[in-house]
Amino acid sequence: MQSIGVELGERSYPIHIGSGILDDASLYAPHFETGRAAIVTNTVVAPLYLERLRRALGAAGIKALEIVVPDGEQAKDWRTLDKVLDALLAARCDRQTPLVALGGGVVGDLAGFAAAIYQRGVPFVQVPTTLLAQVDSSVGGKTGINHPRGKNMIGAFHQPLAVISDVATLATLPARELRAGIAEVIKHGLALDEAFVVWLEANIGNLLSGDTDALTHAVRRSCELKAAVVAADERESGRRALLNFGHTFAHAIETGMGYGAWLHGEAVAAGMVMAAELSMRSGLIGETDLRRVRELIGRAELPVAGPPELSPERYLELMAVDKKAARGRVRFVVLEAVGRAVLRAEVNERLVREAISAATAAVAAR
Amino acid sequence: MQSIGVELGERSYPIHIGSGILDDASLYAPHFETGRAAIVTNTVVAPLYLERLRRALGAAGIKALEIVVPDGEQAKDWRTLDKVLDALLAARCDRQTPLVALGGGVVGDLAGFAAAIYQRGVPFVQVPTTLLAQVDSSVGGKTGINHPRGKNMIGAFHQPLAVISDVATLATLPARELRAGIAEVIKHGLALDEAFVVWLEANIGNLLSGDTDALTHAVRRSCELKAAVVAADERESGRRALLNFGHTFAHAIETGMGYGAWLHGEAVAAGMVMAAELSMRSGLIGETDLRRVRELIGRAELPVAGPPELSPERYLELMAVDKKAARGRVRFVVLEAVGRAVLRAEVNERLVREAISAATAAVAAR
Repeated sequence: MQSIGVELGERSYPIHIGSGILDDASLYAPHFETGRAAIVTNTVVAPLYLERLRRALGAAGIKALEIVVPDGEQAKDWRTLDKVLDALLAARCDRQTPLVALGGGVVGDLAGFAAAIYQRGVPFVQVPTTLLAQVDSSVGGKTGINHPRGKNMIGAFHQPLAVISDVATLATLPARELRAGIAEVIKHGLALDEAFVVWLEANIGNLLSGDTDALTHAVRRSCELKAAVVAADERESGRRALLNFGHTFAHAIETGMGYGAWLHGEAVAAGMVMAAELSMRSGLIGETDLRRVRELIGRAELPVAGPPELSPERYLELMAVDKKAARGRVRFVVLEAVGRAVLRAEVNERLVREAISAATAAVAAR
Repeated sequence: MQSIGVELGERSYPIHIGSGILDDASLYAPHFETGRAAIVTNTVVAPLYLERLRRALGAAGIKALEIVVPDGEQAKDWRTLDKVLDALLAARCDRQTPLVALGGGVVGDLAGFAAAIYQRGVPFVQVPTTLLAQVDSSVGGKTGINHPRGKNMIGAFHQPLAVISDVATLATLPARELRAGIAEVIKHGLALDEAFVVWLEANIGNLLSGDTDALTHAVRRSCELKAAVVAADERESGRRALLNFGHTFAHAIETGMGYGAWLHGEAVAAGMVMAAELSMRSGLIGETDLRRVRELIGRAELPVAGPPELSPERYLELMAVDKKAARGRVRFVVLEAVGRAVLRAEVNERLVREAISAATAAVAAR
């Protein structure tokens, strides 16, 4: 097992990464002093891992309430959130009872937000079981739900007590979801660390085939890169925005196509190609860099273009309400080089349209 | 105008107290750098003060979206919260747009919570127009909504940028609500400052008649006392719980009778008598102190007893889910002396029943 620290002063916490650590009672014991917990999971993850988590907590002397929500992005809504809160109240969970999020990004965001607002905040522990959650959403304290007008529009920053990432759980992940997680791994490389991009170019096949050592390294390096950024800028006033590389476009794809049509990672993949196109059109990177971005994403069997249904106009419309908009203007994360992202507030709208067109399926398919 | 500082490190903020300061553009200007704001108010306060606030903001170059919610405790629910969030999204308010809460405690709690969770947190400014809000709910960063299973069960700690308390707005407050606000003023004295109790005993008539100087002093001293406690314990892990003197019983009354039947301050008044009864029965204060508590509350024309509809059994049931319950046990704030509250986890249930009985209308009316 490997452990990384996320340094946030009194809100610092460890990320434990390893194979089979879901069953390690000693990892849970320090965080549940009252002997009670509430596990939030979903209908897909529960049959796979709930019993094992229950046993691990039991071995640490912790009795847990179990709350099972529906699977899918649709569960990140008011209704499901209220169900979680209602279950906590019905069981009279108090302010000292930690929530445990067992599952992917949706469960983590939902349970984390429930923990943020239940009785004005209770502790929580992340046990992510998808690659996306292990490399991205479980780290950094962003929690929240969707709103019909936009993804993740309602939420809070609420740091977990600990993250326990068992890469063995990725064996049960559908291939499509594994790839979607790899999109965020690639993002960490492209935005922050060229050496990691080189490693990914050499190991993308091992990741796709589910090799444990490759996955452990990818999770660990992603968490390290993200943790360093989060430590420097917990509330995303500056540097943390770089983690949104590809995401402004991706959120437009997800909202425009309806939540769930594209997996988040798939939208991020296409969004990163758009951002790279924009970077090249803004004179920041060359054709070779752009090709390198597109090739890595393509080799990960991820979309290198957005859906033909969405016009550049529709993207601009959808992006205006995206929460990365600062003072009415949309800011873009672009690449200065492979492994070095920067934030640009002044971007020519014509170039944005061109970048979207260049990375839209009907065109890219030519 | 007088100003008090709430010292919370980087979350520190000023409370301005004065007569007619609602119109002072210079108080708003520093907090709205982007020239935009969103005012949240209700149908009762809007016709009285919205135009004036709009003009004051306009004079500071700030253009404001206006969101008017229904009046009353019923507005502290999911549905109204979602309306506020939806209006912010529809107007494409970004993370830099502060919310302004114009109104009483309900508006402040609701708008503050909306500010806490809109795009994971936006700034907000409190402009309280009720005595309850000026002396209590606008100070300390507690925000939230009610849940059918309990009051204030869903919420967040979210500190405002500033509080602007215009005591002249209290002139339009119904007498019953003024008295309800005085209950919290009395609470600050009874829990924290015997000298303030002496001042209240001498000035209760002036407060009831709406004397500006008396109100200014009461607001100022209440804010000072509360601010000192909040500064020492922002998230209510210890000393801040003392501000809940009377509130464990009060929440049971409010939930048991249905939100709105009793005003919060009225329930707190009866709750403080119950807590004083409990203090005496626990051997902490004498009969004279108890009488002093009851007399001051009675002279403020506030209830000195709970509703006959609620049995001691029902209180115990309701209090078990109250969020002050620590690790399954209900903790009580009791008096060691007038002006000195303490927190007790170990309280004899029989004494609690007796205290409730002694301060329940049918009995107290004898």
